[in-house]
Amino acid sequence: MGGVQSFREMCDRTKNTNIRLSLPAVCVVWEIAMIILFGVFIRYNWESDAHWAESKHNLSDIENDFYYRYPSFQDVHVMIFVGFGFLMTFLKRYSFGGVGFNFLIAAFGIQWALLMQGWFGSLDYSDGKIKVGVENFINADFCVAGCLIAYGALLGKVSPVQLLVLTLFGVTLYAVEEHIIIKIIHARDAGGSMVIHTFGGYYGLAISWMLYRPNLDQSSRLQGSKYHSDVFAMIGTLFLWMFWPSFNSAIAGHGDGQHRAFINTYLSLAATVLTTFALSSLFQKHGKLDMVHIQNSTLAGGVAVGTAAEFMLTPYGSLIVGFCCGVLSTLGYVFITPFLEKHMKIQDTCGIHNLHAMPGFLGGVVGAITAAAASDTVYSHEGLVNTFDFKDEFKDMVPTVQGGHQAGALCVALIFGIGGGILVGAVLRLPIWGDPADDNCFDDEAYWEVPDDEENIIPNIQYNNHMQNKDV
Amino acid sequence: MGGVQSFREMCDRTKNTNIRLSLPAVCVVWEIAMIILFGVFIRYNWESDAHWAESKHNLSDIENDFYYRYPSFQDVHVMIFVGFGFLMTFLKRYSFGGVGFNFLIAAFGIQWALLMQGWFGSLDYSDGKIKVGVENFINADFCVAGCLIAYGALLGKVSPVQLLVLTLFGVTLYAVEEHIIIKIIHARDAGGSMVIHTFGGYYGLAISWMLYRPNLDQSSRLQGSKYHSDVFAMIGTLFLWMFWPSFNSAIAGHGDGQHRAFINTYLSLAATVLTTFALSSLFQKHGKLDMVHIQNSTLAGGVAVGTAAEFMLTPYGSLIVGFCCGVLSTLGYVFITPFLEKHMKIQDTCGIHNLHAMPGFLGGVVGAITAAAASDTVYSHEGLVNTFDFKDEFKDMVPTVQGGHQAGALCVALIFGIGGGILVGAVLRLPIWGDPADDNCFDDEAYWEVPDDEENIIPNIQYNNHMQNKDV
Amino acid sequence: MGGVQSFREMCDRTKNTNIRLSLPAVCVVWEIAMIILFGVFIRYNWESDAHWAESKHNLSDIENDFYYRYPSFQDVHVMIFVGFGFLMTFLKRYSFGGVGFNFLIAAFGIQWALLMQGWFGSLDYSDGKIKVGVENFINADFCVAGCLIAYGALLGKVSPVQLLVLTLFGVTLYAVEEHIIIKIIHARDAGGSMVIHTFGGYYGLAISWMLYRPNLDQSSRLQGSKYHSDVFAMIGTLFLWMFWPSFNSAIAGHGDGQHRAFINTYLSLAATVLTTFALSSLFQKHGKLDMVHIQNSTLAGGVAVGTAAEFMLTPYGSLIVGFCCGVLSTLGYVFITPFLEKHMKIQDTCGIHNLHAMPGFLGGVVGAITAAAASDTVYSHEGLVNTFDFKDEFKDMVPTVQGGHQAGALCVALIFGIGGGILVGAVLRLPIWGDPADDNCFDDEAYWEVPDDEENIIPNIQYNNHMQNKDV
Repeated sequence: MGGVQSFREMCDRTKNTNIRLSLPAVCVVWEIAMIILFGVFIRYNWESDAHWAESKHNLSDIENDFYYRYPSFQDVHVMIFVGFGFLMTFLKRYSFGGVGFNFLIAAFGIQWALLMQGWFGSLDYSDGKIKVGVENFINADFCVAGCLIAYGALLGKVSPVQLLVLTLFGVTLYAVEEHIIIKIIHARDAGGSMVIHTFGGYYGLAISWMLYRPNLDQSSRLQGSKYHSDVFAMIGTLFLWMFWPSFNSAIAGHGDGQHRAFINTYLSLAATVLTTFALSSLFQKHGKLDMVHIQNSTLAGGVAVGTAAEFMLTPYGSLIVGFCCGVLSTLGYVFITPFLEKHMKIQDTCGIHNLHAMPGFLGGVVGAITAAAASDTVYSHEGLVNTFDFKDEFKDMVPTVQGGHQAGALCVALIFGIGGGILVGAVLRLPIWGDPADDNCFDDEAYWEVPDDEENIIPNIQYNNHMQNKDV
Repeated sequence: MGGVQSFREMCDRTKNTNIRLSLPAVCVVWEIAMIILFGVFIRYNWESDAHWAESKHNLSDIENDFYYRYPSFQDVHVMIFVGFGFLMTFLKRYSFGGVGFNFLIAAFGIQWALLMQGWFGSLDYSDGKIKVGVENFINADFCVAGCLIAYGALLGKVSPVQLLVLTLFGVTLYAVEEHIIIKIIHARDAGGSMVIHTFGGYYGLAISWMLYRPNLDQSSRLQGSKYHSDVFAMIGTLFLWMFWPSFNSAIAGHGDGQHRAFINTYLSLAATVLTTFALSSLFQKHGKLDMVHIQNSTLAGGVAVGTAAEFMLTPYGSLIVGFCCGVLSTLGYVFITPFLEKHMKIQDTCGIHNLHAMPGFLGGVVGAITAAAASDTVYSHEGLVNTFDFKDEFKDMVPTVQGGHQAGALCVALIFGIGGGILVGAVLRLPIWGDPADDNCFDDEAYWEVPDDEENIIPNIQYNNHMQNKDV
Repeated sequence: MGGVQSFREMCDRTKNTNIRLSLPAVCVVWEIAMIILFGVFIRYNWESDAHWAESKHNLSDIENDFYYRYPSFQDVHVMIFVGFGFLMTFLKRYSFGGVGFNFLIAAFGIQWALLMQGWFGSLDYSDGKIKVGVENFINADFCVAGCLIAYGALLGKVSPVQLLVLTLFGVTLYAVEEHIIIKIIHARDAGGSMVIHTFGGYYGLAISWMLYRPNLDQSSRLQGSKYHSDVFAMIGTLFLWMFWPSFNSAIAGHGDGQHRAFINTYLSLAATVLTTFALSSLFQKHGKLDMVHIQNSTLAGGVAVGTAAEFMLTPYGSLIVGFCCGVLSTLGYVFITPFLEKHMKIQDTCGIHNLHAMPGFLGGVVGAITAAAASDTVYSHEGLVNTFDFKDEFKDMVPTVQGGHQAGALCVALIFGIGGGILVGAVLRLPIWGDPADDNCFDDEAYWEVPDDEENIIPNIQYNNHMQNKDV
């Protein structure tokens, strides 16, 4: 800890938020790198290549994977850009940064994710090319989601250059972690409770711990919402909530797999809403509801049902998961977030520990239990093979062993999240990234041309009044 | 009327909006009840069960009902949560309540609707279980829409506990009414003009009549919009308007049925926009447009074409329906809503009488006429059987008789709406639900932690100015 | 130029924005005309007619074109109404006009487009009827997009009656232009770089040139954004950005065509975001980002990849197009828009020259080059025939010649845009349309009942302070 502390001090120099050279340089150089790497590696797969007309044989055009997955892809896309983006507009003077930087890092991350995930998963060894179709693009959105979750912990305290670095490393770590979990350990994780949420949550929390700002209360006047910024954030909340069933079913198996993943997620989310409202009212003076809980905790059910979404979790099982998650997540906002800030030096702006990290971990556990309890009777033999992919080298796998693999996968996600976050956090402490000083945090003025509002007139009026009083 | 009056007075005690015990208790207890009932009754249907892999035989995965209906389901879902939710953010200080309570009651309602509608419609008598798939979830959203419409009349005047009670009874009434109309009377109502809008509209108006507040003008300073709350409401309007074709086609027949329902709704809505703008300008001083009309009346065409959407209404028929509805609905806002409030003791915050009740009734009439006019020539024999479901016990039905059944169904919707609303309104007058006093109506402060805005500084400034004047 | 100038002066009389007669008259009369024309001409096509049940033979219901295109249609629909609508809410006091008039003219335009495009493209010569299905409705939305682009240049400076006239002529011109480009010249333009964006962009710019207001700086205090109006505009930006892949793939060929068009558009847009952020930061003092660039230039990549979207552009080719477009469009906002206003008398409120006109032209060029470079090796023979529709009278066409045709089509789009805009602009200068005076521009007060906000209190406070100072 002492070493970390001295490293921290070494990095704390005078802050300069001018990113006129660094941001353009990083954006342009990295985009040129993307073009070169795409030129060398990325090609259309057989379902998006013009040869499809000849190679589809007796398939109908409607059986192109595009028609199975494109509606879900678009829903996921809305979650990434509008859902995450608007959820982060809740601060009174950081709406531009919330939705704008979310846009920037997601647009970069999906390109890098296509490459990283492609090298691990879609490489055609016959010609050394990555062949991409709609499923790769869904996976790229998933990968970026991990980095956007991490952004939630750091909202208002970092520069866009730092966010691009966070995304570069985050996507890389994600692709390795995903490969280990899905391909090597052979765990199933259709909705990414472990791969996306546990990893992304702890990745962000570890970075936030490394970037701890002891005097952040200097900008606390901006660390709250205002009436309309809370309404904007509800746009994010609702699009996340409505489309989460598409998120968890987007890459599930054709037919019953997607159908069931949607049902489980829908029900879990519905139950979460009720317990979130209940707990929010219970822990406030006069029973008033807190928008922070409604905006965030209502979504925890979707996270926690991610791994088990395509399993035969049963409808009431989904409700139980959602019920518990609403309670857990709201309690997290009331008790755990202040504790983490005070005693653990983890400042978590959006409360991702309550919305992603904890529910993701819970989702991994639920997935392991549900997998271990699977049986031929419940799934049918063919259903079991389809759902858990008991094929090829894993054709002798049994559900109980699968449950153990799921638990192992959860540990891998945790290790990558915390370990990766500490390493990347160390890099982000270097005093070259243009991050804001404590009293510039949560303020769009640092990185944006902000229009003069009527609201800005008010301090002048107060000033005038003050002057008048003096004059009188 | 005297009895009703004295009952009203009995119920009017001092108001206390503290719901710290009642809201959590209702949410938690009801959600536990849902879990138990789902455990006993709800199971996956054959298209969402893992046995699908074995039982689908020579069907392609793409012929799973999921792929026919999921895109429409998601559109409907957006209408319920973002459409209805944001349409109700138009009040200057009730945006949290508009979008937040909409969220709460919809999330509860869809669970209860799955049970209620399941008992009537999807019960598998071989094992006593309700088997659910994507169509059940669309129907659950439809059912909840009825209750959300009713909320529109009561917006700003009731507590969340009252809304949950309204939803519990509303869903129950809806399920019975729907069963009578669809199964017993064998009426067709793909877009729910009768089942959803007529029922929901009169249900809400009857409750509002029972909860009449003679001194509501005490809070009238809050009973208007502000610039940005009107823009937020346009988000709701547009998502409702754009996705209404999905609403009316979501449970229509596969193939031409869904295709035609979308076309009819789209055209009706387009025509409504033009007559709404025309009438809005005509009835304002200086020809200025009124946002209330644009936000609401533009949607009436979608309501009125609901029943006939899957019939061969013809494209120009749809335009005519939309044309009339824009006129009717805008005139409703100009003349009928003030009349209802002044002379009928019905206070209708969102004007649901003009957007849902009247157009829904009109839609039922249009449906009856269109059904009665159907013929083999226009539909083809197989088309007629498919569209009107002239099968099994109804295989000898003829279009003219079907028209009569449609008219009968409309009466059932009316009776359930008005009768149910009076009964539920009586329950909601009991002085135990934490509803706000007249001068707390339309104010989020009653149930929400509201952030201090710069705007709240303004009254202080005025106060200071006042003080200064005195001092001077 | 002298003639144009004197015509301009002739038309500049005292302005009266009272549209209480003209707007209702135009809306009602035109809607009645629509009903009559629809009654005479428009019928369901075979996939939306009840005869489908008999005529589909051994097609599965899922092979109805509805299921290929409806999800894309809905995405396009969202772009037209929410995307374009909210993108135009960025002005501080013109959000009602931005989203409201967009709604009005789109709702009228789609009806007129169904007729105009139907007469040219879907007329069944056996019975003289236009047979419509989902593809016609996508094309109607496309057609309207051209007029909404033109509205972007005129935002805040015209009356709704002028906008309806602009739409009437715009749709007519579009339908003729599209027929020449697609049917006669046999160019391909799936995403409409030429047909929609080049035409719409120059159409709007030419009208704006005709309606030049030399003293517009009188209303310049309103010609900017405020904090929350910029956040509202981001809703428009993001829905356009996310759904642009659906826009460009909506009417592409079934199977690989739609799949590939989505991939190319997605990648181009992702690259554009990075170069837009880079250039925006580079050209501002202190490297601060400008919301105008983020809201608009990030979308240029989708425009420029429109024509070539369904070709084998390759993934890295798409990135290169997007990269260049982000640079070009942002430079346009920094240098070209002020130049056009100062030296060319073109006032372009939303900067459509940078977002639509230039990128659309570039897209036409990219399309011509990509088409000319096509080969059997890359596409397969059947793929080439499918992609470029080398059938019937064009069965002997070769890619190099097709490239020439594409270039010719681009010229047609330019000529129709500029020529049509000058003609329509002359009509719109007539002093009968109720357009606002210079100092009423960019102000919703001219055409809308605007609620009294707390914000409106501020000037009064200032006024009071002023009074007090005098008193003292």
